Amino acid sequence: MTVRVIVLNGGSSSGKSGIVRCLQDVLPGPWLAFGVDSFVDGLPARLRGSDGGITFAADGGVRVGAEFRALDAAWTEGIAAMARAGAGIIVDDVFLGGPASRQRWEKALSGLAVLWVGVRCDSDVAAAREIARGDRVRGMAASQARIVHEGLRYDVEVDTTHTESLDCARAIATHLTRSPSPGGEPGG
Amino acid sequence: MTVRVIVLNGGSSSGKSGIVRCLQDVLPGPWLAFGVDSFVDGLPARLRGSDGGITFAADGGVRVGAEFRALDAAWTEGIAAMARAGAGIIVDDVFLGGPASRQRWEKALSGLAVLWVGVRCDSDVAAAREIARGDRVRGMAASQARIVHEGLRYDVEVDTTHTESLDCARAIATHLTRSPSPGGEPGG
Amino acid sequence: MTVRVIVLNGGSSSGKSGIVRCLQDVLPGPWLAFGVDSFVDGLPARLRGSDGGITFAADGGVRVGAEFRALDAAWTEGIAAMARAGAGIIVDDVFLGGPASRQRWEKALSGLAVLWVGVRCDSDVAAAREIARGDRVRGMAASQARIVHEGLRYDVEVDTTHTESLDCARAIATHLTRSPSPGGEPGG
Amino acid sequence: MTVRVIVLNGGSSSGKSGIVRCLQDVLPGPWLAFGVDSFVDGLPARLRGSDGGITFAADGGVRVGAEFRALDAAWTEGIAAMARAGAGIIVDDVFLGGPASRQRWEKALSGLAVLWVGVRCDSDVAAAREIARGDRVRGMAASQARIVHEGLRYDVEVDTTHTESLDCARAIATHLTRSPSPGGEPGG
Repeated sequence: MTVRVIVLNGGSSSGKSGIVRCLQDVLPGPWLAFGVDSFVDGLPARLRGSDGGITFAADGGVRVGAEFRALDAAWTEGIAAMARAGAGIIVDDVFLGGPASRQRWEKALSGLAVLWVGVRCDSDVAAAREIARGDRVRGMAASQARIVHEGLRYDVEVDTTHTESLDCARAIATHLTRSPSPGGEPGG
Repeated sequence: MTVRVIVLNGGSSSGKSGIVRCLQDVLPGPWLAFGVDSFVDGLPARLRGSDGGITFAADGGVRVGAEFRALDAAWTEGIAAMARAGAGIIVDDVFLGGPASRQRWEKALSGLAVLWVGVRCDSDVAAAREIARGDRVRGMAASQARIVHEGLRYDVEVDTTHTESLDCARAIATHLTRSPSPGGEPGG
Repeated sequence: MTVRVIVLNGGSSSGKSGIVRCLQDVLPGPWLAFGVDSFVDGLPARLRGSDGGITFAADGGVRVGAEFRALDAAWTEGIAAMARAGAGIIVDDVFLGGPASRQRWEKALSGLAVLWVGVRCDSDVAAAREIARGDRVRGMAASQARIVHEGLRYDVEVDTTHTESLDCARAIATHLTRSPSPGGEPGG
Repeated sequence: MTVRVIVLNGGSSSGKSGIVRCLQDVLPGPWLAFGVDSFVDGLPARLRGSDGGITFAADGGVRVGAEFRALDAAWTEGIAAMARAGAGIIVDDVFLGGPASRQRWEKALSGLAVLWVGVRCDSDVAAAREIARGDRVRGMAASQARIVHEGLRYDVEVDTTHTESLDCARAIATHLTRSPSPGGEPGG
């Protein structure tokens, strides 16, 4: 079955966005990319920093509330519908809720061939890159580096600690094209 | 029937984005906002500036190609699915193709209660605001100001030439709450 | 004496940046533009949100500390030096300290011909535009609209409440070209 | 003599900006950071893409014209004046003109203690990072990687190919504090 959706999960400053842009460059055909940042950009401004929406604590902790979750559920359904309508979709997310975060995607994407990708980065390297970016709450990278992967398995794992985004993207891309499922079409 | 989707159409620099943010502020409940800019941000970089994607001519002309259209069709389906899943959705777009541009939304949004909004701005004022923004190809505002509205009718029209975004948003919001369709629920 | 520096003072969301970009478009010759935002971008990230740097209260209040002031003093000297080296310079600032804020510029710019511009906007309109921008702490526009002008006089005043940025810029530009000081060269 | 100015030279996508933000984090005291990007942001929009200003060719080539050079000369004088006024200054630049590019800084910064830093990155890695950024003209990284360093010597060289920005910053910082010039004060 042709992979229609690639879901990348990784902590803040693990390098997801760079891999996504490289995937869009190396994959055959055009793929649309959306992620947790584009979703948050679509929220009403008042939900950014409110209990019902999303809050960023001074120590890097992130909390989401009921309104955030309700809109997020609709958003994941919409992303799935884009794939069902024929577009290749790359999604990046931060599974702060562990397996439960992934299950909401599995539910929305049911019936679609999905490639699940774990994006790892050593905690101290992610924290260093957070300083180099300069636009994120300090502490998010370190606090998320491990917990977002707890209890999860992936089709592919990449680690940006010592590997460039483009090489990670190429490693992911090989999983779309070389191993068709039994009876399936070639991926991509 | 409760309005689930608000579609704003207007030329470049007509003030759509400001109205969208104000709508998110004044409407009851949280509404998600997406638009042509967020769609273009989701495209592979190589489609920005290529014939198959979207090109911006030096005179402000905009052309889109086959790959752009294919992904756009999937994207509009996805936005519609977000509304069907229960989220209030605000979309802003530039109907460069006139009624045909609107029909692709009508097709995707079939069965949903939609409020169609025309955002007008005098050509010379839009051109002046394009200079004040400083981040757009010069000429887009003037070339799009009238043509995007040709052959189209709306549920509401606003004109930003002499009216602030917030006042335009309030005018639009009254159409969601004061006129329930026969047998319908109150809007919003 | 040829005007080498234009200093615009106005509250948050009064429309300074749009006027600056329009001035760069309508003035003869190329003018460099810098402002309080570009200065803040140049600060270490840790000064944004710290007592020694700059803090934004939830009610829109802004406070600056000792480290901010020390760097700001050097920055204003540097901007003045750019003008002395022959560049036309446009600066936008928010005189939260009233006349004292202006005096630090007068000190740095001594000996240079400066055009002082007040950018006004009705408090409620500025507050509405703050909502439309969506990227500023709510309340800054209203809290700054009047106080930044207290005790100050200008060479030119513009009011963006009912006037487009480009028209404001043109009004300012006439003051550079039509009234040479006695024995002076034409402005600009 | 206390170092007051750190000048980083490196090609596009070599990692200068990340190192600058890390330097602002690890150096004692607050340092102001400005660079070629902040200068270009201060230019009139019409100089971006014009022969007199700065043009980016499709192959990654960059050309600057007479108006650009005149404003740049004033800008470098201004940055030097900020250092003379007591601020620690970090500048990042791209010495497309080789030694001549550096000489314009040497002239402006005469009498100030400057630490000259070369930021290297293997051409293919820089090109890969250019793809991962997605916001630069393709080809700039590869075309600039080597030529910006031709004929130049530095006080410190760092290489981001296999070293994180934060570690590069720490390596640079040791040169400010451990080796005072004869009779000089400790750096920083």
